[in-house]
Amino acid sequence: MNQNSDRIRVVQWGLGAMGQGVAKLILEKEGLELVGAVDIRADLEGKDICEVIGGEPTGVTITTDPAALLASTNADVVTITTTSWVKQQLPDLKTILSAGVNVVSIAEEMAAPEAQNPEIAEEIDALAKQHGVSIVGVGVNPGFVLDHLIVVLTSGSQKVERIEASRINDLSPYGETVLRTQGVGTTPEQFRAGVADGSIVGHVGFPESVRLISDALGLGVDRLEQTIDPIVSKVTRQARDRVIEPGMVAGCNHVAIGYRGDTEVIRLNHPQQVAPEAEDQATGDYITIFGVPEIHMSTGPEIAGGISTAGMAVNTIPRIFQATPGLKRVIDLPSPNALMGPSAYVRR
Amino acid sequence: MNQNSDRIRVVQWGLGAMGQGVAKLILEKEGLELVGAVDIRADLEGKDICEVIGGEPTGVTITTDPAALLASTNADVVTITTTSWVKQQLPDLKTILSAGVNVVSIAEEMAAPEAQNPEIAEEIDALAKQHGVSIVGVGVNPGFVLDHLIVVLTSGSQKVERIEASRINDLSPYGETVLRTQGVGTTPEQFRAGVADGSIVGHVGFPESVRLISDALGLGVDRLEQTIDPIVSKVTRQARDRVIEPGMVAGCNHVAIGYRGDTEVIRLNHPQQVAPEAEDQATGDYITIFGVPEIHMSTGPEIAGGISTAGMAVNTIPRIFQATPGLKRVIDLPSPNALMGPSAYVRR
Repeated sequence: MNQNSDRIRVVQWGLGAMGQGVAKLILEKEGLELVGAVDIRADLEGKDICEVIGGEPTGVTITTDPAALLASTNADVVTITTTSWVKQQLPDLKTILSAGVNVVSIAEEMAAPEAQNPEIAEEIDALAKQHGVSIVGVGVNPGFVLDHLIVVLTSGSQKVERIEASRINDLSPYGETVLRTQGVGTTPEQFRAGVADGSIVGHVGFPESVRLISDALGLGVDRLEQTIDPIVSKVTRQARDRVIEPGMVAGCNHVAIGYRGDTEVIRLNHPQQVAPEAEDQATGDYITIFGVPEIHMSTGPEIAGGISTAGMAVNTIPRIFQATPGLKRVIDLPSPNALMGPSAYVRR
Repeated sequence: MNQNSDRIRVVQWGLGAMGQGVAKLILEKEGLELVGAVDIRADLEGKDICEVIGGEPTGVTITTDPAALLASTNADVVTITTTSWVKQQLPDLKTILSAGVNVVSIAEEMAAPEAQNPEIAEEIDALAKQHGVSIVGVGVNPGFVLDHLIVVLTSGSQKVERIEASRINDLSPYGETVLRTQGVGTTPEQFRAGVADGSIVGHVGFPESVRLISDALGLGVDRLEQTIDPIVSKVTRQARDRVIEPGMVAGCNHVAIGYRGDTEVIRLNHPQQVAPEAEDQATGDYITIFGVPEIHMSTGPEIAGGISTAGMAVNTIPRIFQATPGLKRVIDLPSPNALMGPSAYVRR
């Protein structure tokens, strides 16, 4: 392993699908050095990370004892990919911050933890400052497409009255867990029941995205409404492991509306379904900013989800390493970007 | 005038068309206080700025003596809108920095002054640090559409191999100076002669945009090629003050290519012409990022130029006010964004 002291020393915590992607990417980046990996599976203890992520032996071993690892490695940053929920992740975040190590989390709620967990956000901010380190939550969404990208698009805006944005993606490549939590393949009645009992959750991250936009621009959103409705297919659609017949649910249409008083100022739409092209819907990201000037932006197809969340986690490492202490949000930092060569790791 | 001490105190330097737009916008923003204005026209000395920008009397007077103004106003930031060229602006920048005041410049070359004026960039950086203030150059382009927006779009990119972007706009609303410097209404022969003698310049800012992208991502661009060609009209087109007959020049096609060794890594196209729709060309901004993932972004129409440059200047005021000392580029700061309410002026 290269011991170049200029490289940022990173520990990857969590070796699920996303954590494996992050670890592989860290190993590829010349300005980063992977110095350890954490997982909860006891059978991985002491093994080289290549036994999980493939490839040649790396010299990086997996441990189930993160506190001991952090005490011994002199790590600069931990990338943590364990859960979507701040409350679930809090004990691990405390372990990392207390060891004096910076954190990049892909927990959706960490993109703006003050949105739903203001006391925990204050606790994290205080702990980070106490230990002189910084922490941020990022991902493709929340953390990029339906919030930071919108904020950046208003860079030259003299006035913003209202924002509407949609992210239309295709769940066809996804497996059982994602399809189940989006209600794919249910009847409309089963879908409603699933939403009621919490087994169908839709997108995780709308309160955070709305908070990021509202805080950045000062839009004063004081109320959030969310709706989750079934996308009932008119045609037969093929998912990876099931067929959606007409009349069945192809996915979940999740909408969030942020109001200032009675005025709608932010509307975010995220219909997630299998095979939208079967009903002539193109995948893509669509952002409209009503104001001066009016801006219409689109991407097609949508900016790829899984790839970009792993990319965000890694690309944010230099930003959080250089940040002032405390809890940050992506809007508080110079934008993350692809890390392709030496100058990508240097900021004034 | 509101004397609320929480507001950022701004001086507007330059009262041409762009400076007037910036001054008006500063007056509209609740977190900013316009505390003075500078122009070189002696007949404006001591007059209320409303005599130039219109509207009600503001209590803000115009001076031709910026050093005296800066010594007396306790200004936090100067927005300066006097020229495109770093060398021309340098004496004024020294006056401001030496007075211990932060600067937002819309001089195109200031978006990345190290691109064409590395010694001046070092001098500015040192002077800013000596006086504990910061300075940045921004605008719609360079500073936003063909550089910072591209950088932000790679937030989640695992790899970027090559970037190609185009900004297609319509010069129809513009007056004599812009049309002349883009060669509108010339013959192809006159156009070539105008490029040769420097009277037709095309877009100002490509070396800066390429530098911003290459530095941010670490693409290692070590050579820049620019071409300027006439857009010869096939049809009759109407400009504000002239008619372009078929065979005449409707505008200027300016292309910049950044190479790393012999490999093209960045290509920026900016065809500026009157009435592109006359030949079925839609105005808009188009960005393609070849890499993992591949990203195709477009806006339609293009993000409005003049409005957004004035907006960028004002929206960057809170960022440069809060920055650490020295010369900054837009990629070094949290992104500017529309300033619509109190939280827009607060960063952690």
